[in-house]
Amino acid sequence: MSLLRPALLACALCAALAPLHAPAQPQVRGMQEILASAPAADWRELDPERTLYMDLDSGRVVIELAPGFAPAHVRNIRTLAGEGFWDGAAIYRVQDNFVVQFGDANADDPAGARDLGGARRRLPAEFERSAAGLEFTELPDADGWAPQVGFAEGFPAGRDPVAGKAWLAHCYGMVGAGRDLEPDSSVGAELYVVIGQSPRQLDRNITVVGRVVQGMELLSALPRGPEPMGFHEDPAMHVPIRSVRLASSLPAGERLRLQALRTDSASFAELVESRRNRRDAFYHRPAGHIDLCNVPLPVRVAAE
Amino acid sequence: MSLLRPALLACALCAALAPLHAPAQPQVRGMQEILASAPAADWRELDPERTLYMDLDSGRVVIELAPGFAPAHVRNIRTLAGEGFWDGAAIYRVQDNFVVQFGDANADDPAGARDLGGARRRLPAEFERSAAGLEFTELPDADGWAPQVGFAEGFPAGRDPVAGKAWLAHCYGMVGAGRDLEPDSSVGAELYVVIGQSPRQLDRNITVVGRVVQGMELLSALPRGPEPMGFHEDPAMHVPIRSVRLASSLPAGERLRLQALRTDSASFAELVESRRNRRDAFYHRPAGHIDLCNVPLPVRVAAE
Repeated sequence: MSLLRPALLACALCAALAPLHAPAQPQVRGMQEILASAPAADWRELDPERTLYMDLDSGRVVIELAPGFAPAHVRNIRTLAGEGFWDGAAIYRVQDNFVVQFGDANADDPAGARDLGGARRRLPAEFERSAAGLEFTELPDADGWAPQVGFAEGFPAGRDPVAGKAWLAHCYGMVGAGRDLEPDSSVGAELYVVIGQSPRQLDRNITVVGRVVQGMELLSALPRGPEPMGFHEDPAMHVPIRSVRLASSLPAGERLRLQALRTDSASFAELVESRRNRRDAFYHRPAGHIDLCNVPLPVRVAAE
Repeated sequence: MSLLRPALLACALCAALAPLHAPAQPQVRGMQEILASAPAADWRELDPERTLYMDLDSGRVVIELAPGFAPAHVRNIRTLAGEGFWDGAAIYRVQDNFVVQFGDANADDPAGARDLGGARRRLPAEFERSAAGLEFTELPDADGWAPQVGFAEGFPAGRDPVAGKAWLAHCYGMVGAGRDLEPDSSVGAELYVVIGQSPRQLDRNITVVGRVVQGMELLSALPRGPEPMGFHEDPAMHVPIRSVRLASSLPAGERLRLQALRTDSASFAELVESRRNRRDAFYHRPAGHIDLCNVPLPVRVAAE
């Protein structure tokens, strides 16, 4: 991730060799080394019951759902996926440095809207949940958006120990449920994905349902819609969605075997520390700090 | 910026009307209202001597340079632009959630590299500057990356009052000078632009030279290069640069008349507060906080 000039191979080599001629530097491992040697137990298989595949013409976007934080929304999303609600729907909004949004572009037109089928028409707002019983790996660094930040169920999250509440944080790649002005007006049919600087002001103001774990570049590089909100009014600019399916609805042999690094593992703790204080030769002054949304959440394809 | 469902016109109306049927809500103005009524004195014209036009086939990217923070780099960049160094060069790196990088894709090949002409081959690292004499509009909210954060010369910046230093912050759209491992190895010929979550760990580790003030979407929506660093090794994926010129090198009538909201103005202070505590009807719980890189830095086309 260093900002090297184009001779990256030569310079990647320089960086790798640097500890040899800089013996005063403490031996701190970088992300690739940490991940390469992480024991199998530090990885978890994505649960096909809470993994969505969104297939576009350009490829597959994989979303991990967060039923621990938004159980009613995730139930609706499972129903909608099972009934093919999004098949032939579209990505209709791309706002630079904010979100991509997809679903039924005609949702608010009673004559043209897709039928929600067996999904519920009204859900509770799931902006936060009880922190009781929730395993929470706290980040050593605080931020101004939440009393505590860290990771829960593999997602970036905030926690208020006084109120006893926890919530998912709007980091890059997080998926939320679009709504109208009423807090309980989202049903999970219109979803958005963060593609820019983390809009943490939305935390606890909208229901977050999961995270994109693969294929972000298929969303983040889409042509931006017109200012100010990025809605593509021209249907020719809509990006068609072939299908959105639960991984569990596919035969086991056709599922992606993705694994996420456990955020409660020793490998993850080492990774966080290696990012809080960058020790590779590129960094002149390690920050001694990291923001929640700068922490990488590694996902890999399982070895055969 | 609310995450409304597609009936945006109807809902934008709802939001505008909300104060009428929610009279308990304090009357706080939103960004559009603040900007629309900002007095002329709260806007500053971009100085053509420190404004770069990067012309791509897709349109123009406008960069405001920061000679107050990186005088030697900006001097080199002016020389390079004046001599047409980047004309026919390319954007050769697009790393998702990190940076776009452009310049001479062959910079490290002595046989194929472009000549730097009258530009200096060695510059001092300009990672920070003296805070003495620098007007600094401090943000009321702290973050973990710097003792103080705020705005200086229109840019997001950090400041250390004990060390007496200030520096530019790696927010979305900021432009920096790529370098090798040595701190003083950048010359301003290879530049990068932040297109994702702010990589603030780079602050004070690399020379920041300015900010994209128009045309970000021409960079941020480019197809991503291969992992892990996003360098497009296939030259067919390189995005050609038609030219990079200083605005002052064009006849006055051909320059864009862009104006930036002064970050030391009352309008900007009101804007910051309106974003720290979102009071429009969409927000159930205003954050009472904002991170430096979430503060909008408005730029407009001057009225004729």
